[in-house]
Amino acid sequence: MSPEEFRIHGHAVVDRIAAYMEQVESYPIMPAVEPGDIRRKLPAAAPEAPEPFDAILRDVDEIVMPGVTHWQSPGWFAFFPANVSPPAILGDLLSSGLGQQGMLWSTSPACTEIEMVMMDWLIDLLGLPEGWKTTGPGGGVIQMSASDSTHIALVVARRLAARRAPVGELVVYTSNQAHSSIEKGAAIAGYEHIRLVGVDGAFAMRPDALAAAIERDLANGLTPAAVCTSVGTTGTTAVDPIRMISGIAAAHGMWHHVDAAYAGTAMICPEFRHHQDGLELVDSYVVNPHKWMLTNFDFSAFYVADRRPLVDALSILPPYLREQAAASEQVFDYRDWHVSMGRRFRSLKLWFVLRSYGAEAIRALVRNHVRLARELADRIRGDDRLELLAPVPFALVAFRHVAGEDATDRLAAAINATGHSYVTSSELDGTRFIRVSVGQTNTAAAHVERLWSTIDAAAKPT
Amino acid sequence: MSPEEFRIHGHAVVDRIAAYMEQVESYPIMPAVEPGDIRRKLPAAAPEAPEPFDAILRDVDEIVMPGVTHWQSPGWFAFFPANVSPPAILGDLLSSGLGQQGMLWSTSPACTEIEMVMMDWLIDLLGLPEGWKTTGPGGGVIQMSASDSTHIALVVARRLAARRAPVGELVVYTSNQAHSSIEKGAAIAGYEHIRLVGVDGAFAMRPDALAAAIERDLANGLTPAAVCTSVGTTGTTAVDPIRMISGIAAAHGMWHHVDAAYAGTAMICPEFRHHQDGLELVDSYVVNPHKWMLTNFDFSAFYVADRRPLVDALSILPPYLREQAAASEQVFDYRDWHVSMGRRFRSLKLWFVLRSYGAEAIRALVRNHVRLARELADRIRGDDRLELLAPVPFALVAFRHVAGEDATDRLAAAINATGHSYVTSSELDGTRFIRVSVGQTNTAAAHVERLWSTIDAAAKPT
Repeated sequence: MSPEEFRIHGHAVVDRIAAYMEQVESYPIMPAVEPGDIRRKLPAAAPEAPEPFDAILRDVDEIVMPGVTHWQSPGWFAFFPANVSPPAILGDLLSSGLGQQGMLWSTSPACTEIEMVMMDWLIDLLGLPEGWKTTGPGGGVIQMSASDSTHIALVVARRLAARRAPVGELVVYTSNQAHSSIEKGAAIAGYEHIRLVGVDGAFAMRPDALAAAIERDLANGLTPAAVCTSVGTTGTTAVDPIRMISGIAAAHGMWHHVDAAYAGTAMICPEFRHHQDGLELVDSYVVNPHKWMLTNFDFSAFYVADRRPLVDALSILPPYLREQAAASEQVFDYRDWHVSMGRRFRSLKLWFVLRSYGAEAIRALVRNHVRLARELADRIRGDDRLELLAPVPFALVAFRHVAGEDATDRLAAAINATGHSYVTSSELDGTRFIRVSVGQTNTAAAHVERLWSTIDAAAKPT
Repeated sequence: MSPEEFRIHGHAVVDRIAAYMEQVESYPIMPAVEPGDIRRKLPAAAPEAPEPFDAILRDVDEIVMPGVTHWQSPGWFAFFPANVSPPAILGDLLSSGLGQQGMLWSTSPACTEIEMVMMDWLIDLLGLPEGWKTTGPGGGVIQMSASDSTHIALVVARRLAARRAPVGELVVYTSNQAHSSIEKGAAIAGYEHIRLVGVDGAFAMRPDALAAAIERDLANGLTPAAVCTSVGTTGTTAVDPIRMISGIAAAHGMWHHVDAAYAGTAMICPEFRHHQDGLELVDSYVVNPHKWMLTNFDFSAFYVADRRPLVDALSILPPYLREQAAASEQVFDYRDWHVSMGRRFRSLKLWFVLRSYGAEAIRALVRNHVRLARELADRIRGDDRLELLAPVPFALVAFRHVAGEDATDRLAAAINATGHSYVTSSELDGTRFIRVSVGQTNTAAAHVERLWSTIDAAAKPT
């Protein structure tokens, strides 16, 4: 494909994406395919000879589109949002075209420095500690996902704790409401002991339960290595008491990592920042702009309060070379901040988003989603067929049918059968419930109203 | 940005990328910037209000482009290639626009199944073992980079070996020519012992040296856990004897992982496949189509001969739920194949590439690069000022100036000062040398000729 052909086909792909943006609401959210339906449409082997691009685009229509789950529909209330946006798509497109590899400063100064600046911009936007800026002792880096960020935090914690005990005796603590990525990351990092600490009535980690778990482990000869708290758990967006947990972590020399993958974006609005009180005391932190900040996956923003133990754990350079690089302190070699060596120019996406929207528009988006979620929660609270299961600090509503598990499952199935709205079912202490995550960029009052009408009709009198 | 504005700006970005493809050769490969130059051009904080897209594109010209290292220049002989291609850019663009999250089959059936098919296509294209297909006991998955693939292989190996000894007593072996990602991945996975095994005159791992290292470790009470061999080392593209090493690995119950990140693409030509003799005996394997197969980063193809220990190590589901899923055997939940949970629709890139070029054109590209590299090697071999340091099994030429380190460094500096050609310097047993990696898509005979003229002029009489 020559550059001239690329122009023609590129315009065609851009036009298709624009049309998808315009039409996404017309698709049933979940595609009507069975496992194997799509692969059966593809030939068993790659072609030997070139095919025209039009044939590829025809197969996009006939093979790909019937198998797409419409995360970008405004009726998407499942999981958490994974919003794309027009400027993010264009930032990513430019990144693809330039083909940069930002593993070292010199292999792409633009990739490295714009990433450093974007990570610093986010600190001011979200009210994160000033010391986490690249100009201070800390710093931020783009990882693929919160799972990667948390895994790396636990690797650094393991390395520090290894001075005190073998890995088989180290313990990681998190709440029983934390995201599965924490248990998974701990297992991948080689920890053998992970404690799921109990929560209070609002599903936040209980400091007394954490302290008791630590005491039990110490009494058994084990060594507390790390605690992972959540600002916005997956089930109910509960918020752990960061400041109090930090006191316990400090007393035991533990690494304290905070998972704010979803709710961290809300901190662009100052009125939510009381939920992150105490962040200046933690060691690492993750927020995913690829969820709620209009920046296409992948863009997980990982911060450390002190970058030295991170780089010590991951650098492949001998110490004397690291010293030389660190002496300049002007720029980073981001290769030393994660597992992978190669890295794309991902900061372009956030740069394009923040400049195209401006911070004020993102604040308005977050506030609108939170308002819509709380209005839905009010309706559920006022309906005696339904039970609200948790507070709504952000834009997630967790509820059940009072008639029990079967009624709740039927209600979820009725919502998802509409095609226009989609929710996730989950469990809390063995109780089945429905999660409504209001967060897709184009979700407006009418979409939540339509969802409520479905709930109201399907809930039936008890 | 409305869909209509996205069309307009999208066409503009596509046109810029097309122009970049046409003009890339006119840029000096390494940008003329000092650390900090780029970040100083950016404001200290994100804007509150929206900016017009034209302002962003102007800054792409004024801030980004002066800081770009031109990996896509046909004079790029540094590191290994990281080739982009027009169809790959468009596949990635479509992926960005659709905003899929392929962590479960149901969250994007198209993402999951096209990935499964692409991983199977690669098996036939590269002559990999039939049992690695998703229809067999094994399977392939897209990871971000070879570092991630190798890290995961070592995590699975650690979990299996943990039945025999604590992690502090496990040992990983690789050659002293292996890529740094193996030591890094082993350290991240928590191994405390890694042995860099000696090599023969062609820089391939010596089976007798491996066997001796294992015996020493066994005598000291340690437990061999994994061996990582290379098909194409970073320094000289040396090839370890896979079949012989597999025999040793089997005798000691070790996991055998093969790193063919760069050279794996050459196997699309049958005449190179003798270099991967014995692959049917190994446990895991990685090749990066994002290097030499025209598929934009990130696309690291990771294979396992048996997917059960991989999924056992990484699944967050309890075993009884895994059994249900496995019972269908039709589709995978790729979340259980790597650290991250979210995942982009990356298979579109390779699908677009293989269909746009066809396998025969990729074979021709590889053969042309290898021919150009070997012609350059012949010239170096015939020049008594220069010394060829290693065989040229693929398209990498390693050589030095016979006058020593300073002369070699001056020669590399002279090449890189031209702006039109760029090479990497490295060291082999304390000997400084120059790596010429012929692999950028548009590198033709004239570019290698120009490089040779520079070498010839700068080498001067000894």
